[in-house]
Amino acid sequence: MQRAAALVRRGCGPRTPSSWGRSQSSAAAEASAVLKVRPERSRRERILTLESMNPQVKAVEYAVRGPIVLKAGEIELELQRGIKKPFTEVIRANIGDAQAMGQQPITFLRQVMALCTYPNLLDSPSFPEDAKKRARRILQACGGHSLGSYSASQGVNCIREDVAAYITRRDGGVPADPDNIYLTTGASDGISTILKILVSGGGKSRTGVMIPIPQYPLYSAVISELDAIQVNYYLDEENCWALNVNELRRAVQEAKDHCDPKVLCIINPGNPTGQVQSRKCIEDVIHFAWEEKLFLLADEVYQDNVYSPDCRFHSFKKVLYEMGPEYSSNVELASFHSTSKGYMGECGYRGGYMEVINLHPEIKGQLVKLLSVRLCPPVSGQAAMDIVVNPPVAGEESFEQFSREKESVLGNLAKKAKLTEDLFNQVPGIHCNPLQGAMYAFPRIFIPVKAVEAAQAHQMAPDMFYCMKLLEETGICVVPGSGFGQREGTYHFRMTILPPVEKLKTVLQKVKDFHINFLEKYA
Amino acid sequence: MQRAAALVRRGCGPRTPSSWGRSQSSAAAEASAVLKVRPERSRRERILTLESMNPQVKAVEYAVRGPIVLKAGEIELELQRGIKKPFTEVIRANIGDAQAMGQQPITFLRQVMALCTYPNLLDSPSFPEDAKKRARRILQACGGHSLGSYSASQGVNCIREDVAAYITRRDGGVPADPDNIYLTTGASDGISTILKILVSGGGKSRTGVMIPIPQYPLYSAVISELDAIQVNYYLDEENCWALNVNELRRAVQEAKDHCDPKVLCIINPGNPTGQVQSRKCIEDVIHFAWEEKLFLLADEVYQDNVYSPDCRFHSFKKVLYEMGPEYSSNVELASFHSTSKGYMGECGYRGGYMEVINLHPEIKGQLVKLLSVRLCPPVSGQAAMDIVVNPPVAGEESFEQFSREKESVLGNLAKKAKLTEDLFNQVPGIHCNPLQGAMYAFPRIFIPVKAVEAAQAHQMAPDMFYCMKLLEETGICVVPGSGFGQREGTYHFRMTILPPVEKLKTVLQKVKDFHINFLEKYA
Repeated sequence: MQRAAALVRRGCGPRTPSSWGRSQSSAAAEASAVLKVRPERSRRERILTLESMNPQVKAVEYAVRGPIVLKAGEIELELQRGIKKPFTEVIRANIGDAQAMGQQPITFLRQVMALCTYPNLLDSPSFPEDAKKRARRILQACGGHSLGSYSASQGVNCIREDVAAYITRRDGGVPADPDNIYLTTGASDGISTILKILVSGGGKSRTGVMIPIPQYPLYSAVISELDAIQVNYYLDEENCWALNVNELRRAVQEAKDHCDPKVLCIINPGNPTGQVQSRKCIEDVIHFAWEEKLFLLADEVYQDNVYSPDCRFHSFKKVLYEMGPEYSSNVELASFHSTSKGYMGECGYRGGYMEVINLHPEIKGQLVKLLSVRLCPPVSGQAAMDIVVNPPVAGEESFEQFSREKESVLGNLAKKAKLTEDLFNQVPGIHCNPLQGAMYAFPRIFIPVKAVEAAQAHQMAPDMFYCMKLLEETGICVVPGSGFGQREGTYHFRMTILPPVEKLKTVLQKVKDFHINFLEKYA
Repeated sequence: MQRAAALVRRGCGPRTPSSWGRSQSSAAAEASAVLKVRPERSRRERILTLESMNPQVKAVEYAVRGPIVLKAGEIELELQRGIKKPFTEVIRANIGDAQAMGQQPITFLRQVMALCTYPNLLDSPSFPEDAKKRARRILQACGGHSLGSYSASQGVNCIREDVAAYITRRDGGVPADPDNIYLTTGASDGISTILKILVSGGGKSRTGVMIPIPQYPLYSAVISELDAIQVNYYLDEENCWALNVNELRRAVQEAKDHCDPKVLCIINPGNPTGQVQSRKCIEDVIHFAWEEKLFLLADEVYQDNVYSPDCRFHSFKKVLYEMGPEYSSNVELASFHSTSKGYMGECGYRGGYMEVINLHPEIKGQLVKLLSVRLCPPVSGQAAMDIVVNPPVAGEESFEQFSREKESVLGNLAKKAKLTEDLFNQVPGIHCNPLQGAMYAFPRIFIPVKAVEAAQAHQMAPDMFYCMKLLEETGICVVPGSGFGQREGTYHFRMTILPPVEKLKTVLQKVKDFHINFLEKYA
């Protein structure tokens, strides 16, 4: 150490004796003063630059919070500064963030969470007994009876038991094993963790991951981060965005030329496309996965969000078991759920779970090891997940209020899904498939040739150009279809249906006016 | 789709017509019955196996929750089942999990969190006004005024402002910019995110990451996941685990033969080694990083945990600025803090922040993009971070209680640090450096040749063998030094000093008895 210090003192680097060994504040003031005078003169090249950074990370794209959302933020700041716009507020219809759109939290969930957070409240008469019972049970299972302790890396035991019981009820008795449940930091964390374990090989044996197009861009982002190969299969827009197994077959065959397709990702109900898969279709997909030896990922975070009266949510797990032992004891499946969607919309808590089926016992060990590096998912998010899977039941004190709140959210969403479909389909040059589930419309928009040329002149995808104009003229922030993927030459955007009914009507009317105007302008 | 279904029906796969199209529960019952009868007969090879999995993930090791902790879990289950042991409980001294060891949460922090969670409580007279003020400020900055909304990917604005103000106070006026603050899911998330961006190149230009040995195994795990090159520099055990710049120089020179050393990680106060770096040493390290063009990562999560009266925490940021503009405008630095350590010990909330200095503006964009893929850190963890950096001040209602609680935790830790050092050093064959900071002892243990041979016979590292025996004979769970790295032929273990004083005394006495016994047995 002394030698090194001597090196420094001898001036192997630029000496700044004036600031060494002086009082902190004067040295700091000086440093900051000098910085102001000649910040550029002394600047060396950075170590971490666009050129030197991880190229896989550089290649990542995530449209849901991409350039259009940055622009929305800038516009909000301008509005705050009093700059005049043709609108008074930005409406962020880009992301499925229910409570940001004014949806109220489910009272029971927040009561249990508050009790867990500050257990003194367990003595308060203003909290119902069933909420206290839930809170006591969760705390009992936490280290030191506190949400502030780390949990097991796989999640709190009793919460995993509650998740397993929920799945068993949901799937009409098909058994679920708490040992197969992993609590996660939102569903995104589970999806990227299992993909991280799955990806291997180089060159032509690099892992191929099949994803729907349009997709939720978490998938493409993680595939890029992991340097895996993205294998697209296209959903059938002409057929309500149905998943067609022939298209899976085409995609897997073509992919085999340049990679090793090993994973098939399904999003059901669909994001951004809102379709709900039929039981028959799920059987076909499972058979296909069995046949092609594909590991199945079933993203089922919208399982509570089904609106069309002729649609029903079927879990991949349930269908897998009902197809018999050749499937149920062989097909490897990971399915995902979250506290962020459904009727609770608790995005901020980052709660979620993953259920794995037929995972090799050695891989389970690897999974726990990998999860343990990040210690554990947020315990408050785990507690939120517990309430989602273990809500009040008939006969309990909070049941009536809970049911009322739940039905109100889901009823409103169903109304808004229909409203959105109907209104979009009245606009010339917009076609919108039925919103069977989830919480988005993904309408197809006609973009005139002149607008495509204008977009090209701005080096933008035509639908990005469209959405930027929409944002600038109306304050409505939606995400261009190019951020999710779409068939060449078609254009779309994704818009949430989360604003309150009256506001949603205004939004739709504004989009309509904008669109008609846009068509005229670029006719 | 119809063709695919027909393929299935024609029997391209094994047909299970009996379970198709039947009622769910009977089909499920049958599936489960069949599974019980012939689970093995129908089992195909798994897609995801130890052989096929991501080899980088396979190579990950994380000792803090590794085999010894799995063993501890098994022993706990045995105790619960009534199996007799020479002890009645397992003491988990393997992990810095304060509240699991009985430390009470800071009341003010939990009050604010409860108010944010369930804002109805803002009307309750049983909460102090200063807590309500904090809660209102946080909620005001959240989408929909709710912890249930996603925050900006970089974190809630006003919390980033509070973090910046805290850093400025801490560093005696050296300015901090909220734009340089990124809220994270614990410090682990920040560290792995910035490393993910930093790693690039192949062969001899693969990024080398310099880490201390002994290290906190998050570093080696992330380096392995990212397939980067781990470059070890050894801390000087003979000199209270000091960091010697000559050793940095040796390590970087040797590394240049086979990789591109680009990152230098420092843990101060040290984990597992507990040393607190002198200001002089930090200057030397910064100069070295400047000279060698290394990106600095300063893991400062134990910044509140300094016990030796002659030690003080100096942040890398502050020293960097005091060294003058050549450093402060050139050296790229990311530093990390967390809600998990210090005096609050809120591990479960997974709160943390990262401050970046001199990050290229384009890289900031890349960082936000990468973070946005996971949407946001848990908002409750962000709120906890806010209270850590913005606690009650003199004159506020909660100040006295807060100060009392804080001083009690830190005072006890200081007492336990001294106690542990003194007691270990009374045991023949154990040497323990002063615990200047953090919350661990990392004593060196003498392991007799015969014990080393016995370990080899069990295919275990000698200190793993030692720790397993300690666990089996006393119920005390500590982590072998081999999980952190140590000089060849030396052996250590890491033990937290978190148990309450009386319990800690018992633990230390038990370790002493075990050790003397062990020496005799293998003499």
